[in-house]
Amino acid sequence: MKHPGLWKMLTVAMCVALVGCLQAQELRGHVSIVLLGATGDLAKKYLWQGLFQLYLDEVGKDHSFSFHGAALTAPEQGWKLMAKALESLSCPSDMAPSHCAELKDQFLRLSQYRQLKTAEDYRTLSKDIEAQVKQEDLREAGRIFYFSVPPFAYVDIARNINSSCRPGPGAWLRVVFEKPFGHDHLSAQQLATELGSFFQEEEMYRVDHYLGKQAVAQILPFRDQNRKALDGLWNRHHVERVEIIMKETVDAEGRISFYEEYGVIRDVLQNHLTEILMLVAMELPLNVSSSAAVLQHKLEAFRGLRGLNKGSAVVGQYQAYSAQARRELQKPEGFHSLTPTFAGVLVHVDSLRWEGVPFTLMSGKALDERVGYVRVLFKNQAFCIQHERHWAPEQSPCLPRQIIFHIGHGELSHPAILVSRNLFRPSLPAHSWAEVQERPGLRVLGRPLSDFYAYSPLRERDAYSILLSHIFHGRKESFITTENLLASWDFWTPLLDSLAHEVPRLYPGGADTGCLLDLELNGGHLSFSQQQPEQLVPGPGSAPKPSDFQVLRARYRESPLISAWPEELISRLASDIEASALQAVQHFGKFHLALSGGSSPIALFQQLAMGHYSFPWAHTHLWLVDERCVPLSDPDSNFQGLQAHLLQHIRLPYYNIHPMPVHLHQRLCAEEDQGAQTYAGEISALVANSSFDLVLLGMGTDGHTASLFPQSPTGLDGEQLVVLTQSPFRPHQRMSLSLPLINRAKKVAVLVMGRTKRDITMLVSRVGQEPRKWPISGVLPSSGQLVWYMDYEAFLG
Amino acid sequence: MKHPGLWKMLTVAMCVALVGCLQAQELRGHVSIVLLGATGDLAKKYLWQGLFQLYLDEVGKDHSFSFHGAALTAPEQGWKLMAKALESLSCPSDMAPSHCAELKDQFLRLSQYRQLKTAEDYRTLSKDIEAQVKQEDLREAGRIFYFSVPPFAYVDIARNINSSCRPGPGAWLRVVFEKPFGHDHLSAQQLATELGSFFQEEEMYRVDHYLGKQAVAQILPFRDQNRKALDGLWNRHHVERVEIIMKETVDAEGRISFYEEYGVIRDVLQNHLTEILMLVAMELPLNVSSSAAVLQHKLEAFRGLRGLNKGSAVVGQYQAYSAQARRELQKPEGFHSLTPTFAGVLVHVDSLRWEGVPFTLMSGKALDERVGYVRVLFKNQAFCIQHERHWAPEQSPCLPRQIIFHIGHGELSHPAILVSRNLFRPSLPAHSWAEVQERPGLRVLGRPLSDFYAYSPLRERDAYSILLSHIFHGRKESFITTENLLASWDFWTPLLDSLAHEVPRLYPGGADTGCLLDLELNGGHLSFSQQQPEQLVPGPGSAPKPSDFQVLRARYRESPLISAWPEELISRLASDIEASALQAVQHFGKFHLALSGGSSPIALFQQLAMGHYSFPWAHTHLWLVDERCVPLSDPDSNFQGLQAHLLQHIRLPYYNIHPMPVHLHQRLCAEEDQGAQTYAGEISALVANSSFDLVLLGMGTDGHTASLFPQSPTGLDGEQLVVLTQSPFRPHQRMSLSLPLINRAKKVAVLVMGRTKRDITMLVSRVGQEPRKWPISGVLPSSGQLVWYMDYEAFLG
Repeated sequence: MKHPGLWKMLTVAMCVALVGCLQAQELRGHVSIVLLGATGDLAKKYLWQGLFQLYLDEVGKDHSFSFHGAALTAPEQGWKLMAKALESLSCPSDMAPSHCAELKDQFLRLSQYRQLKTAEDYRTLSKDIEAQVKQEDLREAGRIFYFSVPPFAYVDIARNINSSCRPGPGAWLRVVFEKPFGHDHLSAQQLATELGSFFQEEEMYRVDHYLGKQAVAQILPFRDQNRKALDGLWNRHHVERVEIIMKETVDAEGRISFYEEYGVIRDVLQNHLTEILMLVAMELPLNVSSSAAVLQHKLEAFRGLRGLNKGSAVVGQYQAYSAQARRELQKPEGFHSLTPTFAGVLVHVDSLRWEGVPFTLMSGKALDERVGYVRVLFKNQAFCIQHERHWAPEQSPCLPRQIIFHIGHGELSHPAILVSRNLFRPSLPAHSWAEVQERPGLRVLGRPLSDFYAYSPLRERDAYSILLSHIFHGRKESFITTENLLASWDFWTPLLDSLAHEVPRLYPGGADTGCLLDLELNGGHLSFSQQQPEQLVPGPGSAPKPSDFQVLRARYRESPLISAWPEELISRLASDIEASALQAVQHFGKFHLALSGGSSPIALFQQLAMGHYSFPWAHTHLWLVDERCVPLSDPDSNFQGLQAHLLQHIRLPYYNIHPMPVHLHQRLCAEEDQGAQTYAGEISALVANSSFDLVLLGMGTDGHTASLFPQSPTGLDGEQLVVLTQSPFRPHQRMSLSLPLINRAKKVAVLVMGRTKRDITMLVSRVGQEPRKWPISGVLPSSGQLVWYMDYEAFLG
Repeated sequence: MKHPGLWKMLTVAMCVALVGCLQAQELRGHVSIVLLGATGDLAKKYLWQGLFQLYLDEVGKDHSFSFHGAALTAPEQGWKLMAKALESLSCPSDMAPSHCAELKDQFLRLSQYRQLKTAEDYRTLSKDIEAQVKQEDLREAGRIFYFSVPPFAYVDIARNINSSCRPGPGAWLRVVFEKPFGHDHLSAQQLATELGSFFQEEEMYRVDHYLGKQAVAQILPFRDQNRKALDGLWNRHHVERVEIIMKETVDAEGRISFYEEYGVIRDVLQNHLTEILMLVAMELPLNVSSSAAVLQHKLEAFRGLRGLNKGSAVVGQYQAYSAQARRELQKPEGFHSLTPTFAGVLVHVDSLRWEGVPFTLMSGKALDERVGYVRVLFKNQAFCIQHERHWAPEQSPCLPRQIIFHIGHGELSHPAILVSRNLFRPSLPAHSWAEVQERPGLRVLGRPLSDFYAYSPLRERDAYSILLSHIFHGRKESFITTENLLASWDFWTPLLDSLAHEVPRLYPGGADTGCLLDLELNGGHLSFSQQQPEQLVPGPGSAPKPSDFQVLRARYRESPLISAWPEELISRLASDIEASALQAVQHFGKFHLALSGGSSPIALFQQLAMGHYSFPWAHTHLWLVDERCVPLSDPDSNFQGLQAHLLQHIRLPYYNIHPMPVHLHQRLCAEEDQGAQTYAGEISALVANSSFDLVLLGMGTDGHTASLFPQSPTGLDGEQLVVLTQSPFRPHQRMSLSLPLINRAKKVAVLVMGRTKRDITMLVSRVGQEPRKWPISGVLPSSGQLVWYMDYEAFLG
């Protein structure tokens, strides 16, 4: 087979016998691949080799090729530099060396260097390509431009390609970008908008090279091919947690000018680990080979991510970093960087499938080993009746159950997919994956290799060669669409902002780091297991008890006042409400609780939802103190706050929930609809003597409470239990319990928090009972108890 | 101190100096303890020793004692038998032998035997006690009657005590019973009623000797003394599971006549393990030394137990059992017993604290080891960043975290409480519990002893000696009240009934049993991990996929018919509903689903709630097809079924739930309240064209559907969308969607299940469109699709 044309002839000859081949033949054409930055590091290390591999894979199939290395360097010197990279191209081990050498010769002949600087250069390139296509007597199939250049160069190049180097009609254009794709949501958006002015979405291929790593690229196919076994397992009922890990031993030395600006979250978590997370967490499309379906499902998975906050993450920095930064960035002696070189982030996916399952993303430099993996750890749901010594070796249902996508390095040292033998025997494509040979003594994540069905690729392939093949075949699911990119930044930017001034924990690096970075999940948050020695904080499981509260007990307006720091105040109020609830349920079988909306009670709702296990919710009726005249599902609705922060976390029977009927007959708070009267009727019917067990109020800076504002013509006195009122703030229309009704309650708690309340707190402490001026001053339960809960800022300023 | 009176004098002398002593002195009196069945096995083995211990503990304190061994045997021989038991009384190891010998002499002098047979015997006993009290110049403090006799003798003895042997006014009576306390709820209730006719509740002490075992008796004190550490841990967020285990190596040989009637669940689980479960799961009272509070909280914990069903348990029987039963019970060769000698039961506690946490109760005979323990295994919430080899030994947060109440035996061989060192250092009463000495090589539940803070009692005490002390001190919380007993039988009886004809899995016994009895939790059920070889069932995680359904596709009344076995049918219907939902949400952003009530859809609701992770609930509106005119919270309400089986398991926004307004102005379905019109208005406002995306109907044996019954004057035609109707069944009044409204739906699914539907299915297949006779025959969506889902029994009979 000396003549390369023979391949083509053979293909054509075979085609006539095959259905569908005619069409493939018709599409036959020429593909030009332009590698921008052809003499750079990435090109030398991976991209030329990847292009050579692409040629090896595709030669003699449907298309002819030309490869154009491009850079700003003048032709002669550029060619020299490029030639060096080309010389070192290696042949795959499973190919006959003589045959490969021949193909390498061909590849070199098809490759040329060009200086691409001006629009004219691009026009020339375009013309040359057209000429070559004509000469080959083919149509042009498409052009690939691989941007292996710094991001600042993107826009110029993009403009030139768009204006001067697009292929003619009927041929495709694919432009390939390397990260970073921005620094946060705004910069990513700007870059995307700029590029979007030159290219169509379907023309752009953003590379995350992790998506080309064999174990990562296999996640979706694995889920697809093992659907039957995984269908019942891949969910919150069975998965205990998921770990997505990339540990490095190297540090950032030599790259600090880049690293200082990015840090580990932007460098690794926002892109690589997030992409992997999506592959694990997304709903599996019926057809995993449909790019559109995969991308769509991935985007939906992004929507399910619960927002991150400061408590979601811990950050660290290896001790030598700041000194390295001072050296490389010529910073003064006192300079200390806050850039994290280690981060652990707890991600939750708010879907029925994953609710409650912690996904831990972790990456760091200067750690004790180099390894990357995804570990899906299943709940231990087996119970072995006999003593350990009688367990079935390797397959006992009581051994840990896990699926590991081993990305690379570590003791295993190669990509692999491992499934615990007590789970199921996985199915993997036999032509490309094979069972790993047993290696005595080798342990993977604490278990001997023999515990697993372990598979690794028959041939290890570099990520770039896989991705170049996917670009060539237009498999967009392996790349980052603009929507996905922005969704990812949307997700990460708030955390990055909140960590901007966080001091990372310093760690010595390597084995010396010991347990210093060990993490712990705790009620939706992530923290270091080991407290800093100087920190004096409660140990695990030591939630504050009522007796621990450092609360100030005093009197305010002749009623009891409880004052504390916000967290303690909320804990205390929650405990007091629970005590009232238990008492009421014990005596009357029911607890009628009326809650105010607004922002202060949110922390209270959360506290009640998460920390109070004996709260008698099943016997509690929830009423609203006031409501804005908007639909209940409106974000402005007080009920919506209650729903989001309390109701969805507890089990309150539907018929114990009493939203205010502000929305009747498709209109809001119309007098004629008698919503206030309806609510009053409901109260009279269900609440004995219309006397709530507990009413929670707030106090506005103008002295309003509930939705009773100064000078309100309704609600401050009179017979009405529930009234429509007007607020000076938007939305103006409100429904509110009246003062007379509030004052029938057995207990009224007023929660006042924050510095902005300082003045009104002072003022109200001195005034008499003047509800017309300050409605709050009219709160005085006729036979019940009034208690003020004020944080120190509101009370002491 | 030769003279026993010295003790008393010393006490009195010391008393004068102490506050409150005067009162104690006033209460000084005489206590008589009558051991019924004084010559029986239990008495010989434990009770006399326990009484002697009680004497050692109490001598010289507030009371004087007399001990009366009683039985039916004539005095002389009875005394001989009893004397044997008394001779072998042993002294505690921490007491000087000479001193103990002295006290033993005293104890023997205070002990006497009496024949108690007739009412006269009891009267004599009573008089003798009175005489003795008089002679001692004390008042009588109280009498304890310990029933160490078979249950059939209870009633006679109880009658005699009640009529002839009660102490006089001011003195207490305590009667102590040993299990079994009945065989099921009914028999326990009968026994309790009988005993209740003789004794007050506060007089009765039902013994579960496990409550006297030191590690068990310490559970509540431990929870109390470690409140601070446990408060944040003792809940579903932190506890992965709880195991309550009692394994025996012995089999039932020699006791089969008893065992055959009881089996392991009645023998061990219903009493011992359930009591322990309560101690672990109950809310901790503020004051754990208040008997009333403890008993009350325990009773509440019973209320939180989720009902058991067949899927909650697995049972086994050691292979030799049936042969032993044949031998001991003189049964014929072909006799095979179904009595379980092994049971594993999965218990769920439906409280906010424990929701979702599996409690596994397990006990069996002829197992590989003898051991009893409670193990609280915490979730692994730590993540160690470095390789295993860099973990902190013993204390690494990544090692398992558990608290073990080791009841006895096993390799540890004594009672102990163990807390993983990575949890917290527990606090235990220093005067009675001490740290366990390290024993190299010893492992407890798979971990070296050195992993734990391990404490054991300074002095091992027998359960009966502890319980006798508690009886003497009136500590009722260590005993089974009637309410608790009946609550326990309430809980267990349905399971026992459902297992009555279950064939237990045979196991060889001992080490040979291997993994044959290993258990597995699976979606709220418990099963053996190993399938019986002959069973052909799907492996773990292989939930059926649509393609697996063995469904019959046919046509019925000219519409598509899907027929299958019930489980497959429901799975298929659920999948179809989900597909409709996804499609509707994709196109319109919303899915309007109208559901019928009744029993058939319950399995569907459960399937939708538990298995459909991608169901777009947040965008689904739920409507009712029909409703009974009862309050929504009434068990008869269709809405209540929806709430219990679907709503509480999913997250549907409150305002997407649309119950029928059958209850307005505190009355049910009054025409004037215009509930039907209100519902119709709501539908018109929210559902485009009042065309539901999917309506799920059923079919009654009279051909009714929704609540549209034959000959209904409303709803079968006309303009009305929602109507009030009359049912021939109770409750008669109904609200229902009308046929014209149903027929506007985009899809109507009719679910018909069970043999009772066979005739109407036949009939309706042949009739035309005659809604007045058979309302179901009027279902024919004008532009939508109708699909019938019938199980084989309904369709093929």
